[in-house]
Amino acid sequence: MHVLLVIAHGSRRCESNNEIRQFVKNIAQHGRNAFDSTRVAFLELAEPSIETAVDECVHDGASQITVVPYFLSAGYHVARDVPEILAAKQTQYAKVPINTKAYIGRSAEMIDLVIDAALD
Amino acid sequence: MHVLLVIAHGSRRCESNNEIRQFVKNIAQHGRNAFDSTRVAFLELAEPSIETAVDECVHDGASQITVVPYFLSAGYHVARDVPEILAAKQTQYAKVPINTKAYIGRSAEMIDLVIDAALD
Repeated sequence: MHVLLVIAHGSRRCESNNEIRQFVKNIAQHGRNAFDSTRVAFLELAEPSIETAVDECVHDGASQITVVPYFLSAGYHVARDVPEILAAKQTQYAKVPINTKAYIGRSAEMIDLVIDAALD
Repeated sequence: MHVLLVIAHGSRRCESNNEIRQFVKNIAQHGRNAFDSTRVAFLELAEPSIETAVDECVHDGASQITVVPYFLSAGYHVARDVPEILAAKQTQYAKVPINTKAYIGRSAEMIDLVIDAALD
């Protein structure tokens, strides 16, 4: 089972976390999504934590986990915190490859999204 | 002069703020960008602040400011902090309309960007 894990920052504002949870549900249901399961995790302030989400993936039978950090720039969260947590989990679950992709702010299409938003 | 102002969170990590500054420069130079000027501001932890950026826009002759909040979800920053700062600036500069667009996380294309990142 190949799991896509989308990691967001998490917010003190409940609606914001629910917005991210719904967003990840929409990703799960998208026609181009070929992952067996698509899940959400939060770095802080919301559940599930990254640790809990990875534990659940493995418990549910994940053979491989692909991570997309849902962050716009490489602050300390992207550059240090998320990689450290995932590295510890990779050590714990050595047989389940955890493959972290570029954070979303690196997407070449992001410029177009800003211009689209500005012109909308 | 119609200014596009991209507002980001700001980071304790200098490279992250420079990344955002370069990103906004790339937006400024993009062929689809018809704004007379494209500028960056940070909510916190980096310069220019939103207040300073708006002051500079008006000082430089802006007749209209379009704002795109470069945030992924509607936490308190998007729901409260940024609107409060901009409302105060709108009161100060009543003759320069400040028009805030949807934050970038509302873009319908964001799902595709996550899937693209996951499959890359």
